[in-house]
Amino acid sequence: MTDATPRRRRAGGGRAGRQAARAASGSVTAAYLERTLPPVGVLDEAGLAQIEDNAETILSEVGIAFKDFPRALELFAAAGCRVEGEMVYFPRGLARQIVQDNAPASYIQHARNPARSVKIGENATVFVPNYGSPFITDLDEGRRYATLADFENVVKLVYGLPHLHHSGGTVCEPVDVPVNKRHLDMVYAHLRYSDKPLMGSVTAPERATDSVELCRIAFGGDLEAKTVMTSLINANSPLTWDEMMLGAAEVYARANQACVISPFILAGAMSPVTVAGLCAQALAEALSGMAFCQLVNPGAPVVFGTFATSMSMATGAPTFGTAESGLAIYVMAELARRVGVPFRSGGQFTASKAPDAQAAYESAMTLLPTMQAGVNFVLHAAGWIEGGLAISLEKLIMDADQLGAMEVYARGVDLSENGQAMSAFRENEHGQHFLGTAHTLANFETAFYRSTVADNNSYEQWSEEGSKTAAQRANEQWKQMLADYTGPNMDDAIDAELREYIDKRKTEMPDEIG
Amino acid sequence: MTDATPRRRRAGGGRAGRQAARAASGSVTAAYLERTLPPVGVLDEAGLAQIEDNAETILSEVGIAFKDFPRALELFAAAGCRVEGEMVYFPRGLARQIVQDNAPASYIQHARNPARSVKIGENATVFVPNYGSPFITDLDEGRRYATLADFENVVKLVYGLPHLHHSGGTVCEPVDVPVNKRHLDMVYAHLRYSDKPLMGSVTAPERATDSVELCRIAFGGDLEAKTVMTSLINANSPLTWDEMMLGAAEVYARANQACVISPFILAGAMSPVTVAGLCAQALAEALSGMAFCQLVNPGAPVVFGTFATSMSMATGAPTFGTAESGLAIYVMAELARRVGVPFRSGGQFTASKAPDAQAAYESAMTLLPTMQAGVNFVLHAAGWIEGGLAISLEKLIMDADQLGAMEVYARGVDLSENGQAMSAFRENEHGQHFLGTAHTLANFETAFYRSTVADNNSYEQWSEEGSKTAAQRANEQWKQMLADYTGPNMDDAIDAELREYIDKRKTEMPDEIG
Repeated sequence: MTDATPRRRRAGGGRAGRQAARAASGSVTAAYLERTLPPVGVLDEAGLAQIEDNAETILSEVGIAFKDFPRALELFAAAGCRVEGEMVYFPRGLARQIVQDNAPASYIQHARNPARSVKIGENATVFVPNYGSPFITDLDEGRRYATLADFENVVKLVYGLPHLHHSGGTVCEPVDVPVNKRHLDMVYAHLRYSDKPLMGSVTAPERATDSVELCRIAFGGDLEAKTVMTSLINANSPLTWDEMMLGAAEVYARANQACVISPFILAGAMSPVTVAGLCAQALAEALSGMAFCQLVNPGAPVVFGTFATSMSMATGAPTFGTAESGLAIYVMAELARRVGVPFRSGGQFTASKAPDAQAAYESAMTLLPTMQAGVNFVLHAAGWIEGGLAISLEKLIMDADQLGAMEVYARGVDLSENGQAMSAFRENEHGQHFLGTAHTLANFETAFYRSTVADNNSYEQWSEEGSKTAAQRANEQWKQMLADYTGPNMDDAIDAELREYIDKRKTEMPDEIG
Repeated sequence: MTDATPRRRRAGGGRAGRQAARAASGSVTAAYLERTLPPVGVLDEAGLAQIEDNAETILSEVGIAFKDFPRALELFAAAGCRVEGEMVYFPRGLARQIVQDNAPASYIQHARNPARSVKIGENATVFVPNYGSPFITDLDEGRRYATLADFENVVKLVYGLPHLHHSGGTVCEPVDVPVNKRHLDMVYAHLRYSDKPLMGSVTAPERATDSVELCRIAFGGDLEAKTVMTSLINANSPLTWDEMMLGAAEVYARANQACVISPFILAGAMSPVTVAGLCAQALAEALSGMAFCQLVNPGAPVVFGTFATSMSMATGAPTFGTAESGLAIYVMAELARRVGVPFRSGGQFTASKAPDAQAAYESAMTLLPTMQAGVNFVLHAAGWIEGGLAISLEKLIMDADQLGAMEVYARGVDLSENGQAMSAFRENEHGQHFLGTAHTLANFETAFYRSTVADNNSYEQWSEEGSKTAAQRANEQWKQMLADYTGPNMDDAIDAELREYIDKRKTEMPDEIG
């Protein structure tokens, strides 16, 4: 845990992350964002304390179910919990204390390219692509099941998108590969076609083990002192953890790899319909899951996760980009900061089936709260569409462009002498434009984020160029990026060793069809 | 000024506004939003004080030009300013003092229907439609110059959209009516086809006078104690006010009608390229314009306005929904609160030419800062497209739907016993959904804002229904709304008197072609 930063102390690490990385496109970009914008809060001290108190009531009186995983029950009983059957009741404050006594406030997740290593926690924000979609869609071929070739294309695109800091995990499900073997191809693709940090498999303990073994090969050695994966452990909300996720979390925690401990909540279905109720539940769930990891291996990096959105009370369909989900992000981020661990939430969500105005309204209404709340690990930051059932290649490009604008938000308002620009006022004439002032000439190259997708031209020029929508422009961009792709280097011996491991494992197992 | 609230005191008024209004559609909606969500700040006390100090330096050392309007120069000289030619130099603190000593912290703008009167200032937020576009566009007919028939249709649509609290002003330019007469038809349309509050004409002092006279007829009497218009006075940024706007502002201030005193800034052109520079300039401009109104008629309602966005430093084109403009909204709202007057900014801006993803990303990225900053008067809240050159009927519908979600933001997090939902946790089984709990059943009708545009259905259902984009669904909605329109009542005698005034004025003037 050389890179982990104890809670409530200033991060000493992050040097590697602060180095500028040269993207495949040749553009220089930061490995992750360091926020100077103060985080937004929507509740006062009393309100936050009330929700924390409610979470303790849930933990102590309602309890958390740990299903089909006796080792968790043994660990919690030994730590002082009351265990009845598969129910665990935490004395008030115990889960929080276990986490605060052991979990780091931040950690470095190492990338294969050291310049792309990211800090996770505190004032850092890391953007990670879409996760878990069985379908892929684009304007040319429409919606279809995703394949390994699609998966590899998404990894290649993310590699070239400078504002995505992380290669992600199951960016889409390669359904043409047997369900018990596809994790091997996915981890290989992230390691081979990108050099950004990655996520490991969580769908079974042995697949987590394979992820760790492949990373040992790729990173050339023991990972005990080096966190190279951050993987997603979802709760079976409400108030339940299951064998599959606990087993994977145990593998990663033992190997000092990071787990995002994420309640997965559609409010109204997996939680009460109110924001305050949802937040109390998510806090209780996250504390119980993070405490489990700390009991397995004290000090293993964990991220306090929340996936929380609303649903249509008329049809039961999940809804995204709603005000309720935005408010929940703000509250949960504050609760996570008070625990003192990194926080995952938000992204760019939508229920739309097309990369249209609905998709963009809902995505932006999720992304800005994500940024302003100070989320550290932003899964689903680009590409998500159709409630997560599909990844859209056009939306991947459009969303990633929005992430670039978030860099400007992260910096906040520049109050340096140059930022104040008083010299410009003394130089410029009343009623005349500032374009020729020395201050403007000195700053125009770096003033304002330049979108690669937005069309700001005149109606006439836009019409002459074919009256294209943003999605049509994004379509042209991803095709060009794939045509231009040149991957990162990998040592031939390491590549051979990775392939050998994968071949051996695939041979050992009969195919399972999901 | 019976309805005006002195600065820094709690509003006693707003009773009329708090009454629920029954919309034309039959739905019940609030006349305006009352925010309980705390406003977002992005600068600390020292940062805000620095920008205020810079604004005073601009006012005192760089000065403000008041062009072709000798009465303004006389008023400022009498108030203690140094006047040189058309330049006015304010002793440090004087402009601010004039505003703080005289301007109300909030006021009631009366609507023809008292249930639709709005409070402007303090914790109130009022959404106002698009303003000033010469073109109109929709999916059926495409983009064309707007006519009076288009103008009337927009007024009718806004009347039926429950989340737009205000009928607005020049929702589009009726270019088929002579430029010196169209204000009469516009004011009449707002009064006749809607009963929401309205804006008056500002393009010449005599047109402002006509607006006042028409309102005297419609509201049945003297307006000295009754503010019924809030009108838009733009600065000729940088640091210049002109005769046309000063003349209109003078008419309105004398008649106790409200003026939005608005710097109009594309950063880089009309101001320095930095947020801090832009904000210092806008504060100086707004203070000087509001001080003018207070010298004309102490206590006349004024709104501190800001229209501020960025530009493409490559092409000079204005850009919208950028992080820089969002940060400026937060800073300016804090500066306005510190002055103690109502604040206008934000809206739903875009440079896109189509109601597509770009339009929605940029609009949402403006609207959420607008809401979270605590803007009081939100002009351009729905319909703006193509950098303001056009109003889009589809975007009007889509934007207005987003405004509905803002009502949820405005309320913040409910921490009542029902909001905390602890009973639901005690009732519900682990791992089982909450849909059947008593708490969910008691709350599901009101839980979550229900969008009228978003499609949250399955891909299969959406495909069966024609794979429509959000813009296509909005297109169907506005056509249905116009088909279903039934206007508010107006007394026949008042209608006749309005028409008589308009006929007389039109006969007095030869047509002018803009």
